[in-house]
Amino acid sequence: MKTGESTAIDIAPETNNSGPIGKKKSTTPLLAAPVPDRGTHRMKRGLAIFDFVLRIGVLASALAAAAAMGTSEQTLPFFTQFFQFEASYDDLPTFQFFVVAMAVVAGYVVLSIPFSIVCIIRPHAAGPRVLLLILDSVALTLNTAAAGAAAAVVSLAHSGNSSTNWLAICNQFGDFCQQASGAVVGSFAAVLLFLLLILFSALSLKNSH
Amino acid sequence: MKTGESTAIDIAPETNNSGPIGKKKSTTPLLAAPVPDRGTHRMKRGLAIFDFVLRIGVLASALAAAAAMGTSEQTLPFFTQFFQFEASYDDLPTFQFFVVAMAVVAGYVVLSIPFSIVCIIRPHAAGPRVLLLILDSVALTLNTAAAGAAAAVVSLAHSGNSSTNWLAICNQFGDFCQQASGAVVGSFAAVLLFLLLILFSALSLKNSH
Repeated sequence: MKTGESTAIDIAPETNNSGPIGKKKSTTPLLAAPVPDRGTHRMKRGLAIFDFVLRIGVLASALAAAAAMGTSEQTLPFFTQFFQFEASYDDLPTFQFFVVAMAVVAGYVVLSIPFSIVCIIRPHAAGPRVLLLILDSVALTLNTAAAGAAAAVVSLAHSGNSSTNWLAICNQFGDFCQQASGAVVGSFAAVLLFLLLILFSALSLKNSH
Repeated sequence: MKTGESTAIDIAPETNNSGPIGKKKSTTPLLAAPVPDRGTHRMKRGLAIFDFVLRIGVLASALAAAAAMGTSEQTLPFFTQFFQFEASYDDLPTFQFFVVAMAVVAGYVVLSIPFSIVCIIRPHAAGPRVLLLILDSVALTLNTAAAGAAAAVVSLAHSGNSSTNWLAICNQFGDFCQQASGAVVGSFAAVLLFLLLILFSALSLKNSH
């Protein structure tokens, strides 16, 4: 009985090795799972982390552009009896649109960051990635329209246009113009980062099958 | 023997039904194939055809916008001793950029049509779809920047700006302004169609695994 018990115990550990064996069994399906091999998984996680970092960059650019344009105003040091000469972004509807659009883009980027984190945690989930790609395209459009419109007006302010008799105002309002130009540069930086975001989303989606 | 034969013959047709059975065997792997089930296949082909149709629409919009802007000029019916009053898209650098950008977009769309056809023929190929998605995003950016810039200048031409002393020129050059506005509308139509293209590309990619 004792030996029988002992053999029973001797056998037991081996079958109780269901620890390692069980582990092996639970790891094999992971390795041979229908979707991912290790390299793809690692690459997609890398793309997702890069996506997250780029989003921070877009947020910074968009906020900086909105803030630079929103605070741009200049009062000239001389004035007549009736009015002061001052310029602010409020004077040009295009610049107002620019500030609002860049603020909206910044807000969207903040809201998109949780989805980006989901993509880091679950690199093979196609749903949030597609959602981000589509919304990124819309935000890119808004951002680009604002940047293009502001660039057109800034260029007019810088050099004027003789055919239409629109005089350059940057001779008088140099600081104002510089700040507006800086904001336009910032918004184009955001456009470039958005394009990179879309590029990486597309690459990540491509390898999801 | 005769009855045995007859039963043998009776059985033979059943096993000779390897016709239908063979068909069943050759259809089952098709149905249970690793990649496509029928519905996905059909949906993706539908998306690809829709993509092709949208591309034609983008081409028409972009060409119309470029042509409308490129032919916009107006000579006023009165003139002084020294010069005629005339306006053309050449007078405004933004409008020149608009014409060039829309022409480039139209050219890109023409070049992209073969890839779109490849996507119709092979709805499950992810490569050309990703390529189209990325290039579409770039073209969308160019298109939007041109549309936004031209819209800003057209709005200035329509209503002027009192703060900067830029007078509206549309009072004098009404036809010119109308043609330019039409071109801007056309380019924004192209922007919307591009967004739809990206949307459908993303959906098609999502279901490719």
